[in-house]
Amino acid sequence: MNANSYVVGVDFGTLSGRAVVVRVSDGAELGSAVHEYTHRVIEQELPGSGVRLGPDWALQSPQDWIDVLKIAVPEAIAASGVRPEEIVGIGTDFTACTVLPTTADGTPLCFETPAEPHAWPKLWKHHAAQPHADRINELAARRGESWLPRYGGKISSEWEFAKALQVLEEAPEVYARAERWIEAADWIIWQLTGVESRNICTVGYKGVFQDDTYPSEEYLAELNPAFAGFVGKLATGTIGEKVGSTTLAHLGGLAGRVSAQAAEWTGVPEGVAVAVGNVDAHVTAAAADAVRPGQMVAIMGTSTCHIMPSDHLAEVPGMCGVVRDGIVPGLWGYEAGQSAVGDIFAWFIDNFVPASYLEQAGEAGIHAYLTSLAEKQEVGEHGLVALDWFGGNRSVLVDHNLSGVIVGQTLATKPEDVYRALIESTAFGARMIVETFEQAGVPVEEFVVAGGLLKNRFLMQVYSDVLRRPLSVIGSDQGPALGSAIHAAVAAGAYPGIEEAAAAMGKRTENAYVPDAARADAYDRLYAEYRRLHDFFADGRMLHTLRAIRNEAAAPGRRTEKDA
Amino acid sequence: MNANSYVVGVDFGTLSGRAVVVRVSDGAELGSAVHEYTHRVIEQELPGSGVRLGPDWALQSPQDWIDVLKIAVPEAIAASGVRPEEIVGIGTDFTACTVLPTTADGTPLCFETPAEPHAWPKLWKHHAAQPHADRINELAARRGESWLPRYGGKISSEWEFAKALQVLEEAPEVYARAERWIEAADWIIWQLTGVESRNICTVGYKGVFQDDTYPSEEYLAELNPAFAGFVGKLATGTIGEKVGSTTLAHLGGLAGRVSAQAAEWTGVPEGVAVAVGNVDAHVTAAAADAVRPGQMVAIMGTSTCHIMPSDHLAEVPGMCGVVRDGIVPGLWGYEAGQSAVGDIFAWFIDNFVPASYLEQAGEAGIHAYLTSLAEKQEVGEHGLVALDWFGGNRSVLVDHNLSGVIVGQTLATKPEDVYRALIESTAFGARMIVETFEQAGVPVEEFVVAGGLLKNRFLMQVYSDVLRRPLSVIGSDQGPALGSAIHAAVAAGAYPGIEEAAAAMGKRTENAYVPDAARADAYDRLYAEYRRLHDFFADGRMLHTLRAIRNEAAAPGRRTEKDA
Repeated sequence: MNANSYVVGVDFGTLSGRAVVVRVSDGAELGSAVHEYTHRVIEQELPGSGVRLGPDWALQSPQDWIDVLKIAVPEAIAASGVRPEEIVGIGTDFTACTVLPTTADGTPLCFETPAEPHAWPKLWKHHAAQPHADRINELAARRGESWLPRYGGKISSEWEFAKALQVLEEAPEVYARAERWIEAADWIIWQLTGVESRNICTVGYKGVFQDDTYPSEEYLAELNPAFAGFVGKLATGTIGEKVGSTTLAHLGGLAGRVSAQAAEWTGVPEGVAVAVGNVDAHVTAAAADAVRPGQMVAIMGTSTCHIMPSDHLAEVPGMCGVVRDGIVPGLWGYEAGQSAVGDIFAWFIDNFVPASYLEQAGEAGIHAYLTSLAEKQEVGEHGLVALDWFGGNRSVLVDHNLSGVIVGQTLATKPEDVYRALIESTAFGARMIVETFEQAGVPVEEFVVAGGLLKNRFLMQVYSDVLRRPLSVIGSDQGPALGSAIHAAVAAGAYPGIEEAAAAMGKRTENAYVPDAARADAYDRLYAEYRRLHDFFADGRMLHTLRAIRNEAAAPGRRTEKDA
Repeated sequence: MNANSYVVGVDFGTLSGRAVVVRVSDGAELGSAVHEYTHRVIEQELPGSGVRLGPDWALQSPQDWIDVLKIAVPEAIAASGVRPEEIVGIGTDFTACTVLPTTADGTPLCFETPAEPHAWPKLWKHHAAQPHADRINELAARRGESWLPRYGGKISSEWEFAKALQVLEEAPEVYARAERWIEAADWIIWQLTGVESRNICTVGYKGVFQDDTYPSEEYLAELNPAFAGFVGKLATGTIGEKVGSTTLAHLGGLAGRVSAQAAEWTGVPEGVAVAVGNVDAHVTAAAADAVRPGQMVAIMGTSTCHIMPSDHLAEVPGMCGVVRDGIVPGLWGYEAGQSAVGDIFAWFIDNFVPASYLEQAGEAGIHAYLTSLAEKQEVGEHGLVALDWFGGNRSVLVDHNLSGVIVGQTLATKPEDVYRALIESTAFGARMIVETFEQAGVPVEEFVVAGGLLKNRFLMQVYSDVLRRPLSVIGSDQGPALGSAIHAAVAAGAYPGIEEAAAAMGKRTENAYVPDAARADAYDRLYAEYRRLHDFFADGRMLHTLRAIRNEAAAPGRRTEKDA
């Protein structure tokens, strides 16, 4: 591996895919390109057929993903000035749990029956499987399944088993045709290499694989007799072992080599190393050089994902999961999350900001303008507190049927007041998560921020004040893609492991924000009210009732014009 | 009194004054005119001096009221085609408790010291005297004052004693100069007649006059020794008896006759009968011909006031007050209210509706457009419930330090969803009031609606469905002014009493809206959640804390740019 070796990282996000070309020796990012998905998120109706979707559905198109390989990767290579023969590896990361049914050769079922909603990939934020998740959790708790505490006591409706059970029960013919049920993170590797593999990260976090095994056939049969054999659509065995058509694979491992077909799509030469699939959040830890125990990486964008390696196993209430080798081999990898963060601010901007503000905002943009108004306020001057559950609550309540609450509005409340309260609510949500980890005996030594919200310096300062701790920040604005490139370097053999590659290629600034004591004290008072609200609404008695009323009112046949 | 007799009614509202010329025989409204107050509501800074006001202040200018007499009354007479010599009486009504300090001859103190905030009239919605009201209530409860239950167990911060105590303690020199502390309702009569009088309605409801007496000197001294003689600035004695400079007067009575000065201002001939002052809400009962026991009149505008005569006395928790002869002589008059109703919708429109909606709304207007979207929804389809406390809670909690709550928002929530939830929240608030009356043994036989919100037919239907009862509606869109004219006819001797005059001149349509059983059932479910929210937030533990934090953050010296 000479000094002029390069790797390609490809990050498949919610709305677009990004490719970046990175120098192996130091992580320098030499060129990048983005491809916006043509179909973005499919929430209202299916492309082509116009078939309407129900509330809480969210799908994607595999063709959009392939287009990223065909368009963004060659553009990034061209932009970098790197010659294809200098490329030694390619790595990818994906949103998760984004999962699809395919035939035995990996053909997505939606390519065969595009008018069937359940044939399409279910995006991570597809939340219509909540009833199925509820049953999964209720039965697991009743039977005392040993894997349940590894997921904070609750499996998310976003994950593989809940989504698959929904397919089985709402479209059994689709379920029957689905020879494989595969994460998009692994499906894209299949497209690159021609070989099926399953990365231990999504297998563990989203596939409920613990201590070398899945939930038992007996358990699955009790959920639904037809679900007993579901594991046959996944990957079994131990890490590195090929069972049937597929292999369970370590992160940073070699999944295979670029196929002739993929070489034609991407411009990366046939035979180049392809890293095992990975998840956008988890791969970012490497990009931030934050893969040691106690380094919590918060990837803050439309939602926030919290990733932290640790050298010991504990049961943290409401965490998304803890998986052996789930971030780096040899450590326990913890994951927690907030279902919506940047999505909340975008929703507010799109729906609840008057024309006069847009005019005032001018070219700086409405987020910058509202931030400029909000940051002039003293802590608590708006008189508001909000619950950041507008997209449900991932941690620490694991309940997507919760919804948002805004408290304290008067006739003098202005848009910037609510905007600031929404920002603060997400910081309070983050504090709940950090405190829950620490109370469970998993110390958070360093809070490292990555993701698109880094650009809002006011928001970062709010987090530092609310958390009462310094923030480190990643040194790249394309963290997941850089992380994927680092994994590619490991897969290509340029480094002995992820930790060494991260140290050489990852980028992090410590103490980028430090808390102000007076503001932190003031936020403590607001946080106490947040906690009181949290405790009142956490049982879902009211919010579940409102959602049930909503869903009945919005039932097909009574429906008038919207799907939300 | 011949067939061509006419009376003038003048309604002094929150933002404007309206005069109407009415035929005595049948209540026909022949001409009207409106004068918008130049200074509207003074909330930020004093006119002229620019002195800044604190949070929750709301003042008005007496000059604006005089201008209504000078401008709107002559215009209405001109518009009516009535000859001045055909006018036999003039009556007025006012917002309450809107109260001001004057010299012994009625000169407003703000005419002398315009840079002193406390010299100005305090508008009904001045809410900065809440700490004083709290002390008034705490002490009265501790001493077991017999008048307290007549006000639902709590005196409002809006009323005469709380506002006067604030003046005494924050500006003692203004308090000392105030020889008279008088409702605007009576002050305007003084301007018309040259004679001071005090109407039993505001004396009872806002002045805590019960069983022919005010709170005792001993009680007042315990609040503040300097407050012991406060009653000397009011009116004492029994109804019809002149004590000192003033007389306590029955509604519908003759306060005096139009002075030469007032004749010059108004164009109403000198010597014409002037009715005793009255309150906008209370006088509307006559306009709706709804002055019999059990007829609850809801005057729905920026806020809602509920007025109901009854033949017996009961203690209704959280009512604003019950006053003997307070609506019509001979009956107990009950009052309850909602601090903000139309104000809530206006606030939402002004601050939280995006440009695209305004474009879509076009000439129909944004309220009509949002209503058109909201009314397409099934009950509960928005998944929301709100507490209508954005302007505090008048009934049944009597707490202006409460604030609004919106629950159940998701990333799919649209402006029309919130708009509808806000409308519903005010209907739930109205239901709380009706149920509280009935549970206290004061039956509500008929619910009669008056006021500006009548024009929103969807909103009216929501109220009918939520209340599960038919709505009657007033037959005039200038109810208070018509009511004042009816009182003028009584004062002029055209009818023996208010009930007879109301029957001849008032207008009401029964069963204008009837409830739909299915929607009413659906609303019952949402109302159960409203009640749960109500009970959780009623103690103010959280909302008072948020307000206290807000007020500290917004304290002078720390203040940046807003006063809310």
